[in-house]
Amino acid sequence: MNFQINKDALLKNLIIAQKALSNKTPNPALKGIKMDVTEDKIVITTSNSDIAIKLEVKDSSLNVESGGSMLIPGKYFIQIIRKLDGLKVSLSLIDDNMLRIEADRSDITLNMMDLEDFPELKFAEKVKSINVNVRLLKSIIRQTAFATSSIENRPILTGVNFQIHDNKLKAIATDSYRLSQKEIELNDEYEPLDIIIPGNSLDELLKVLENNNDQVEIHFDHSKILFKYDNILFQSRLLEGNYPETSKLVPTEFPIIIKFNKENLATAIERASLLSSRDGNNAIVKLELRKDNVVEVTSNSPEIGKVLEEVYPVDEIVGKPFKISFSSKYFLDALKIFNSSEVSVNFTGEIRPFTIVGEYDKDMLQLILPVRTE
Amino acid sequence: MNFQINKDALLKNLIIAQKALSNKTPNPALKGIKMDVTEDKIVITTSNSDIAIKLEVKDSSLNVESGGSMLIPGKYFIQIIRKLDGLKVSLSLIDDNMLRIEADRSDITLNMMDLEDFPELKFAEKVKSINVNVRLLKSIIRQTAFATSSIENRPILTGVNFQIHDNKLKAIATDSYRLSQKEIELNDEYEPLDIIIPGNSLDELLKVLENNNDQVEIHFDHSKILFKYDNILFQSRLLEGNYPETSKLVPTEFPIIIKFNKENLATAIERASLLSSRDGNNAIVKLELRKDNVVEVTSNSPEIGKVLEEVYPVDEIVGKPFKISFSSKYFLDALKIFNSSEVSVNFTGEIRPFTIVGEYDKDMLQLILPVRTE
Repeated sequence: MNFQINKDALLKNLIIAQKALSNKTPNPALKGIKMDVTEDKIVITTSNSDIAIKLEVKDSSLNVESGGSMLIPGKYFIQIIRKLDGLKVSLSLIDDNMLRIEADRSDITLNMMDLEDFPELKFAEKVKSINVNVRLLKSIIRQTAFATSSIENRPILTGVNFQIHDNKLKAIATDSYRLSQKEIELNDEYEPLDIIIPGNSLDELLKVLENNNDQVEIHFDHSKILFKYDNILFQSRLLEGNYPETSKLVPTEFPIIIKFNKENLATAIERASLLSSRDGNNAIVKLELRKDNVVEVTSNSPEIGKVLEEVYPVDEIVGKPFKISFSSKYFLDALKIFNSSEVSVNFTGEIRPFTIVGEYDKDMLQLILPVRTE
Repeated sequence: MNFQINKDALLKNLIIAQKALSNKTPNPALKGIKMDVTEDKIVITTSNSDIAIKLEVKDSSLNVESGGSMLIPGKYFIQIIRKLDGLKVSLSLIDDNMLRIEADRSDITLNMMDLEDFPELKFAEKVKSINVNVRLLKSIIRQTAFATSSIENRPILTGVNFQIHDNKLKAIATDSYRLSQKEIELNDEYEPLDIIIPGNSLDELLKVLENNNDQVEIHFDHSKILFKYDNILFQSRLLEGNYPETSKLVPTEFPIIIKFNKENLATAIERASLLSSRDGNNAIVKLELRKDNVVEVTSNSPEIGKVLEEVYPVDEIVGKPFKISFSSKYFLDALKIFNSSEVSVNFTGEIRPFTIVGEYDKDMLQLILPVRTE
């Protein structure tokens, strides 16, 4: 095996492949990057327990003198390619077990791993697939994956539930204290679908997708989901089990509706959370609608001190004075993902879940469970 | 106590005072910021086991209605001031034990600490002091403090030795494997001096000093050093003991002198260190002067692979073929602080310390001990 390629073109693809490399895998072969070189292309494959990535590199700079396959120690290879000088890098296999890397005045020899230890991976492209715009897919992921659970005691909640009914795709994430839900219209009608994608896989997918208006082709089967984008195949395992029925959680009537400037509300909550007796992420703040229609956001920690923030709603308020307490982190997490500069917070009662919606975030719903205090 | 001040002016000073705050101090009072307010100024004082800072704030925005003193929980106070909206902040003492902080629509009350627990600090301004340009002082610190030891088993080596003889100031740091030395001319003659300043204190001082051409006034006594700069008094304890005599370490004759482009040499060493069998910071690389006057930088780790880098010296070489091994981290640390784009590396022998000097870094010397291999 012997070929030359533009260094930056190779590096760009290795950085994508790296997303499926794991340093703490129980299977050492998964620390390797598989490279298959044929006449006109390189195929790069990586895999860990959650995701697998396959890249076809057909750069115009590629010059293959002879083809072949090898399993390269991923961490070292990427470090080396990243640090090389020169425009071009030349790669050749020596004695079947060493990779010689030459660029500028560098001559590096890297011991190869045993190719046979790398698992056989099936990238399951189906005849039928769903096409989604990249930007739209990225926004669905950004607006839901943050609300998954990071605790493993209910594994199903570490994933995002994707449901297709008719021509609608609904994505739902919840850690049982808050819920994020986003719905989009698809261009076609599809067969019904109900799957759970690990949140971590979606976080990695986000890093791989660029910000453009290309289409991502999504292929499913019962245990895997495959995203096809540009020269990339990105496959994730699915979580097994039934996702909890969440639609009953969402109240349908809201006697109290308050509209806020998002920024003002967020900074008031941030400041109130500074003096919470609970540490940073667990700070609890109280929101109170006063008789004069001003909203107070407060926290009180006898040992440290107290914060009182006044927030002026931006519109007529529906409802009468009341108060509610909640996790400041959950509220701020939710506010962060709105595109709208104004949000409506809809309350049912002092110990009932409340929702946040925004005019420019159609079909997105944020729901938060309050905290009982005193 | 009751006063108003521009929020950013207060914050800027608090961020400086924060450098002497410690969260893990055994004395809880040192987590506090002492504030003394009089008619026309605020004095802010902080202290930890190594350093103490005193700031006089006389901002034009300051409006004192009544003066007083208090000890404020440092971490919370800085977090709050940082997050406030509005240009101005109003601070007032309530019931002698709470600080009320008002700005824009925020009304925050912070419990105060017991002022009497804060230690009495003496900032020892002497009649006689040394004046040094800020930029020059910063470069002395940057070019020496990195070479101090971070291991506590020889405490004296965690400091930088400052010596004054006649009109010269010499700064020396060594961890016993490498040495950095810088000498500058002073504008006056001073009495001889030989002190050791903790490296950590100097690192904090570096963050406090701005990049301008102001003068820093330096005051000494037997146990403390005081830097007076702008509205800041920055005081550090000194390390007790005798600094090792290092002048004998530096070879006086160099049969081999090789001049390099600094950047080329650094990247070659960086790449060679990538495939070292020892982890990152402990990587050992070998440098060899070949008969054809090309320099090879190499590393070889049987399990991983090997690197061979060719580096072309930029000038006639003095000396004959030889090789030497060293810690790549020490060599790269040293190269980083040179202003010169070309450096001369001066060797005495394969197991003797070598030095690095640069044309545009007059009076600076870097010395590194080689590593025996095989």
